[in-house]
Amino acid sequence: MDPVRFETHPSEYKHWKLEIAPDGQRELARLVMDVDDAHALREGYELKLNSYDLSVDIELADAIQRIRFEHPEVRTVVVTADLDRVFCSGANIYMLGASTHSFKVNFCKYTNETRLYIEDASAHSGLRFLAACKGTTAGGGYELALACDEIVLVDDGASAVSFPETPLLAVLPGTGGLTRLVDKRKVRRDRADVFCTLAEGIKGRRALEWGLIDGLVSRSKFDDGVYERSRALAAQVAEVPRGPAVELTPLRPEYHDSGVRYRHVDLAIDRDQRVATLTVSAPTEAPPTSRDDMVAQGADLWSLRAFRELDDALCHLRFNEPELGLVLLRTSGDPAHVLAADQALADHAECGFVREVRLLQARVLRRLDNTARSLFAVIDQDSNCFAGSLLEVALAADRVYMLEDDDEQVGVYTSVANTGVLPTGNGLGRLAVRFYGAPDQVGKLLERGHEGMIPTAEAAELGLATIAADDIDFEDELRIACEERASLSPDALTGMEASLRYPGPETLETKIFGRLSAWQNWIFTRKNATGEQGALTLYGRPERPSFHWTRT
Amino acid sequence: MDPVRFETHPSEYKHWKLEIAPDGQRELARLVMDVDDAHALREGYELKLNSYDLSVDIELADAIQRIRFEHPEVRTVVVTADLDRVFCSGANIYMLGASTHSFKVNFCKYTNETRLYIEDASAHSGLRFLAACKGTTAGGGYELALACDEIVLVDDGASAVSFPETPLLAVLPGTGGLTRLVDKRKVRRDRADVFCTLAEGIKGRRALEWGLIDGLVSRSKFDDGVYERSRALAAQVAEVPRGPAVELTPLRPEYHDSGVRYRHVDLAIDRDQRVATLTVSAPTEAPPTSRDDMVAQGADLWSLRAFRELDDALCHLRFNEPELGLVLLRTSGDPAHVLAADQALADHAECGFVREVRLLQARVLRRLDNTARSLFAVIDQDSNCFAGSLLEVALAADRVYMLEDDDEQVGVYTSVANTGVLPTGNGLGRLAVRFYGAPDQVGKLLERGHEGMIPTAEAAELGLATIAADDIDFEDELRIACEERASLSPDALTGMEASLRYPGPETLETKIFGRLSAWQNWIFTRKNATGEQGALTLYGRPERPSFHWTRT
Repeated sequence: MDPVRFETHPSEYKHWKLEIAPDGQRELARLVMDVDDAHALREGYELKLNSYDLSVDIELADAIQRIRFEHPEVRTVVVTADLDRVFCSGANIYMLGASTHSFKVNFCKYTNETRLYIEDASAHSGLRFLAACKGTTAGGGYELALACDEIVLVDDGASAVSFPETPLLAVLPGTGGLTRLVDKRKVRRDRADVFCTLAEGIKGRRALEWGLIDGLVSRSKFDDGVYERSRALAAQVAEVPRGPAVELTPLRPEYHDSGVRYRHVDLAIDRDQRVATLTVSAPTEAPPTSRDDMVAQGADLWSLRAFRELDDALCHLRFNEPELGLVLLRTSGDPAHVLAADQALADHAECGFVREVRLLQARVLRRLDNTARSLFAVIDQDSNCFAGSLLEVALAADRVYMLEDDDEQVGVYTSVANTGVLPTGNGLGRLAVRFYGAPDQVGKLLERGHEGMIPTAEAAELGLATIAADDIDFEDELRIACEERASLSPDALTGMEASLRYPGPETLETKIFGRLSAWQNWIFTRKNATGEQGALTLYGRPERPSFHWTRT
Repeated sequence: MDPVRFETHPSEYKHWKLEIAPDGQRELARLVMDVDDAHALREGYELKLNSYDLSVDIELADAIQRIRFEHPEVRTVVVTADLDRVFCSGANIYMLGASTHSFKVNFCKYTNETRLYIEDASAHSGLRFLAACKGTTAGGGYELALACDEIVLVDDGASAVSFPETPLLAVLPGTGGLTRLVDKRKVRRDRADVFCTLAEGIKGRRALEWGLIDGLVSRSKFDDGVYERSRALAAQVAEVPRGPAVELTPLRPEYHDSGVRYRHVDLAIDRDQRVATLTVSAPTEAPPTSRDDMVAQGADLWSLRAFRELDDALCHLRFNEPELGLVLLRTSGDPAHVLAADQALADHAECGFVREVRLLQARVLRRLDNTARSLFAVIDQDSNCFAGSLLEVALAADRVYMLEDDDEQVGVYTSVANTGVLPTGNGLGRLAVRFYGAPDQVGKLLERGHEGMIPTAEAAELGLATIAADDIDFEDELRIACEERASLSPDALTGMEASLRYPGPETLETKIFGRLSAWQNWIFTRKNATGEQGALTLYGRPERPSFHWTRT
C-alpha cells in the first residue's frame, strides 16, 4: 500500500475549498466541503454524500493551519458544504469496514486532533468557527459541527443533526461527539441518550430547544442568516495579536527505505528491532532575535520548521510504520541556539506570527504525548541538546535515560519554554505533570536552569532522569531496556501509557483521548460491530446484523 | 452454573478473618487474608498463594461494611495476611484465563468498587486502613494495598511490590492500580512506567524512595512496627460520629425463576425481551423519626434495608443475568414515608449509625450509576413513589418516562436527599449532573419541592422528564422505546452510556471506571492477551506467547 502523505496545499485540495474573503468580506473565510468521491485515500470505497476518509481530514487540518498562519485578517471561518441537501454525512462507513483495527483507531485519533485544532484556534487565535449546515449533518459531520463555536442548521422540515453510529453501526460517534454533547454544549444527559439512539436524528425547533444547535435559518434566507451570525460571532472575539502573514512552505521530506530525512528532524527505522530513532537538531546558527528578522525567516524559522517536521514525522510513524513499538527521542546541535530561539519567541509574544509558532509547538508536543508508542528519551554525548522546547520532547517521554559522563558534559537546559507555555492536554505544563506529586520541584528546577546546563548527576537528583548510568553501564542498560520494551504486548503498553501519561486534572481533550477513544477502541474489536455478522461489517448489505446479547 | 450469591457473614468466611480488637487493642481491627484454595467460586482453578477470585472479594466487601456498622469503636484496620512470605498475589490468573469477557469485566468492576469502599470509609467514617505486607505483594495484591491509607512492606531483601500484569500477562493492573500510582500516590510517571514493566517489582529502600510504599519494617520487628504505625494513623483521624453498633442481619431474598423478591425490592425478569423491572417500595408505615427509634430498628430501618436490597439486586443482575440489556426502574408505596425517612436521616446526621446509612445509600446509588445496563425510570400511576432518595434512582437513569394523567396524580417529590448528599462518582449530586448546563435549575427545583408533589406536566417543564406522554400514548411510547433499546448492540450502549453519564469533573473514581476500565476491557479482547497464543491464555504453560506487533 502507498504510504500516507500529510503535506498538502490549497491548490492541491480535492475535497475542500478554502475561500478567503469571499464576496469581498475581508474578515471571513469559507471552508467548503465538497468531497470528490473519486479521490479517496484507498481503493474500494467511494466518498459519497460528503463522507470523509483520512485524505479529507488531512486537507482540513492543513486549511486550519493555513488560516492561522497565512490569513491573519480572518476572524470568522464558516464551515459549510457545496452539496444541496447534505452538510456532511460523517466518516465513510465502507472505509471503516474495510480498515484494520489499528488504522481505524489512528484515523479516529487524527480526526480528533483536527477537531481539537479548531477549538484551539478559537481559544487562542481570535478565530471563530461557524458550522453552516444546509442539509443532513450526520455522525462525524455533526461532530465536525460540534467542534465549531456555533452551529446553524437549515430549517427545511427535513434536515437533521444525528448520531446514527450506535443504532445503525453498533459503534460510537468516535470523534468526540459524546463528550462534546454533554461537556461542551451541556446537553442534558437524558436528552443526549435519546438523541444518540435515534438514527434519523433531530431537526428544527427541537434541535434548538435541546441545545444541539444554536440557530435555525430557512433555506431561502440561509446565506444571509449565516453571514449575519458570522458577523455577530466576529464581534465577540477578544482582540488577539495576529500576523503578519507567513506562508507555510512545503517541507519536502526525503523518504528512504529506512526512514525519513527532514531539514531538522531525522526518523531512522529499525524494523527488525521494531525501534525508531527520532532526532531533532538545533538551529545550525544563531536564530534571529528581532521580530522583523523572525518574520523574515517565516516558515524557515527553526522554531516553526523543526516542529512542523516533527509533526509530519509523527503522523508518518503512526500510519506508515504501525509495527514500530518504541521510539528513541534524541537531539543534536548547539543548545544555546535552541535557548535563544525559545527566548526570542517569549520576547515577541505580542507578535501574532510568533504567537502562532508557539501554539503550533504546543500542538505538536501534544501529538507526541498522544502517540501510542513507547517513548524513551536518550541523553548522551551524541544526543545532548535537550534544552527548553527540546527538553519538552524528553518530558513527553515515558522514560529519560541520561549518561553520567566523567567530564559532566552531558546534561539538560531549562528555558522559558518549560514554564507551562506549551501545555499538555490536561492543561498543565510537562514539568508540572512530571512533578505532580512535588509541585515545588518545578520552580526549583526552573530557577536552577538560569545557571546553565544541569549535568546528569544533578538532573537525576532533581528528578529529571529516570535512569542515570555511567559510561560502563549506559549502553547496556539502554540496550536491554529497548529489547525488553519491544518484547511486550503492544496493546497492554498502549493502555498502560495512556493511563500513566495524564495524572491530575481532566479536560475535554483528555476525556476524548482517554475515555471516549478507549471505549471506541473496545467496541471496534467486538463481534457486534466488526464480526462477520456485525453491524459495521454488514452496513449497506441486505443482511441484518446479529448480536451477542451479553452486556459487558 | 450456580448463581453467585453476594450475602455472607464473618462466621461463613472462607478466605478472610475479621479480628476485632485483637490482643485487646480496642480501636483496632485486623482483616487477615488467608485464602482457602479449595473454596474458589468455580471449579477449575485453585486459589494458591493468596490469589483471589470473586468469592474472596465478596467477603472483603462484607467485612468493610460490617466494620462500619457493627464495630464503630474501630479506628484502624490492618489489612494483612497469614501466609509466611506472601501478602497477596492478586487476582487468580487461571480464573481470569477461564472466564468469559463479560465475567472478567464485571469481576474487575466489583473489585474496583470494593477498593473504593475502603477509600470511602477512610474519607467519611473516621477509619484508617494500613496494608501490612509481610511478603510478596503482587498485582491485585498491591492494588489492594494502594487502596489503603498506608502501605508497610517487610524489609527482608526479598519481598517486593509489583505489577507483573503488563510484562507477564499482556494486560493491565485492572483494579485502579495505574490511576492510584500517579494520581493518588503521585508517583513520578516515568518511575511508574519502569515499575509497571518490571515483573519482579521493586523492594526495600527503592520502593520507599519512589513512593510505592510508606514504610519498611524488618521481619523480626514487623508486628510491633505495624502496631506502632497503626496507632499513629489512628491519631491522625478526624473525629467523626460513629455508632451505635447495628448488626447487619441477612436479607434472605427469595429467588424464583423469573426474578428475586426482597422485602422492599423486587427484581422481575423477562428473558425473552431481555428486560428487567426493578421496583423499590416505600416503607409500609411511617418510619421512625427519633434517633433512638431509628437505632432500635437497626438493620430493619427502611433507609438501610431497602438500599442493601437494591445493592444485592444490582450485583445479582450483573453476574447472574448478563443478557438483560434494559432495566425499568419503578417505585411503589407512599411517598410521604420516603420523604419522612429522608428527613429523619438529615435530622440525625450527627448520629454515627444514621451517617453510615446515608453513606451506604450513596454507595448503592453509585453502584447503580456504574451498572452497564440501560436504565429507564418509569413514572406512572402504578409506579409513583419517586420521592427524595427514590428520586435519585430516577436521576441515575438514562431516561425518565413520565405519564401525564388528567388528574395530575402522577409526579415526583424532592427532598433533602436530592441536595447533593448522595453524590455520584464525580462528586456532584445527581441533580447537578442532570442540569450540568443549567445549574440554577437545581435550586429552583429544590425550592419548588417544598410545596409537595411536582406533577408530570410541571416536572417536564422543569426538566425532570425525558419523555412525558398522556394516557393515550404513554404505554405505546414506552413499549416501542423498550423494544428499540433492547435491539441495539450491548457493547455500543455500554460505551455510550459510560460517556454520557458523567459530564463535568473527574475524580479518581470516574478515572478508574471511565478510563482505566475501558482500556482494560479493550485489552482483554485482544489476541495478544486472550487469543490462543495470548499471554493470559498461556500463563503457567511452557509455551511462550506470540504477539501481533501492530501498535494501536
